Amino acid sequence: MTGFVSLVGAGPGDPDLLTRKAARRLAEADLVLYDALVSPDALDLAPQAQRFFVGKRARRPAIRQETIQGLMIRAARRGKRVVRLKCGDPFVLGRGGEEALALAAAGIPFEVVPGVSSAISAPALAGIPVTHRGLASGFAVVSGHAKETFGPILGSIAPNSLTLVVLMGLSNRAAVANFLRSKGWPANTPAAILLGASTDDSFVWTGALDGLGNAPVPDDDAPGTLVIGEVVSVASRIRPFLSAPAPASDAGASERSISWSR
Amino acid sequence: MTGFVSLVGAGPGDPDLLTRKAARRLAEADLVLYDALVSPDALDLAPQAQRFFVGKRARRPAIRQETIQGLMIRAARRGKRVVRLKCGDPFVLGRGGEEALALAAAGIPFEVVPGVSSAISAPALAGIPVTHRGLASGFAVVSGHAKETFGPILGSIAPNSLTLVVLMGLSNRAAVANFLRSKGWPANTPAAILLGASTDDSFVWTGALDGLGNAPVPDDDAPGTLVIGEVVSVASRIRPFLSAPAPASDAGASERSISWSR
Repeated sequence: MTGFVSLVGAGPGDPDLLTRKAARRLAEADLVLYDALVSPDALDLAPQAQRFFVGKRARRPAIRQETIQGLMIRAARRGKRVVRLKCGDPFVLGRGGEEALALAAAGIPFEVVPGVSSAISAPALAGIPVTHRGLASGFAVVSGHAKETFGPILGSIAPNSLTLVVLMGLSNRAAVANFLRSKGWPANTPAAILLGASTDDSFVWTGALDGLGNAPVPDDDAPGTLVIGEVVSVASRIRPFLSAPAPASDAGASERSISWSR
Repeated sequence: MTGFVSLVGAGPGDPDLLTRKAARRLAEADLVLYDALVSPDALDLAPQAQRFFVGKRARRPAIRQETIQGLMIRAARRGKRVVRLKCGDPFVLGRGGEEALALAAAGIPFEVVPGVSSAISAPALAGIPVTHRGLASGFAVVSGHAKETFGPILGSIAPNSLTLVVLMGLSNRAAVANFLRSKGWPANTPAAILLGASTDDSFVWTGALDGLGNAPVPDDDAPGTLVIGEVVSVASRIRPFLSAPAPASDAGASERSISWSR
């Protein structure tokens, strides 16, 4: 009897931004393999499961990708229901495709449970729509992990033709900004840095492309999101009205207030 | 006493892909203004609310954007909890930014509840990771609604530099394919057409860019997703193993099987 693997997106951080399906898979899981940045509150949705941290953290030795895949496959072969819980969406810049191919090669049945990607939600929660009529009819999402990855992509996109969202590029923000300037992106292109979207530790910086490289952030090694494009200019009009609703009279649900660093 | 507006993403179709927060907002709503393509099962999460259809459908007269915004604002001023339920994510190509600006201009407090975007989830559910090591370190999401919108964007991206996802471009797929060919995208670039992702009526076509324009689809007016790029080639290895888990012994949750049109 073969088990089953669910490749599940955990969303940007707030466990309320997990999908209903993700929550149900966690409730039914025997084993949860989770990344860094997955909230403890999300893991609390799987109180009966074994839970293993298999994440990678900046500047620390990482568990090997093959090891993660081997854990999933062995557990499924023992009949377990496995949830592989990945930040954001499992197929956006997280090696989820490789994990899916490893499962397929091993003959393990599996599913993908899409999640809310930080690429879209981190800007949205800061009042930045990645598309906006008259400003951008499209957006690109790019890994900022290394110049070898972002260079060919950012270099292939004409300046200001769409919104750029750079994930995993916080510590490379000066290199990203300099590269874009060298390709003709104007110095005054609006830009934003977003950390901890949807969590109690959210941080938002907005400014222009020529200030992006030197913008101070609380933690250079955090998994921040960079946004570059005219849509960032919309945020100053939206943000003052962003809030949380008052608690419903009949509900015990707790709501966080939004904390802004300006 | 002023009410509150939640701009909520409904995800790609399956109500299980709503977030937990979206479900709670629906349960607490007094008024739900919903788009075309929002599932009746999602609306069932708001049994106590007034529910108004304010969607746009292809080739039919649409309710004016200003009317939708006026309905939200008036209801909030009467103290109502309003959920504006939009397909996918509220800030991806859906005029959500305009709705947010209208609320801000009217002084109405509101929030954005990000959703699972079809741009990422429709490919994922067909076994296509929008990024994949060695194939694409980024992706672009573009409106295919009109050549005036997709032309400047697609024309600004170098061939095969990243994965292209075209939303709202099904009926323009020949124009999109011809335009990309004219810009140097190779005829054999893998391509896919995805309809009804996450629903019982899902349809998947995969082939090459030179077949995209004439590929037969069940409904030209449906809101399909086009994917163009090498990542589409991964799907044939992933798709045979995509399935739904067996029902949990202790749960009454129903699971749909995945239907493929090949």
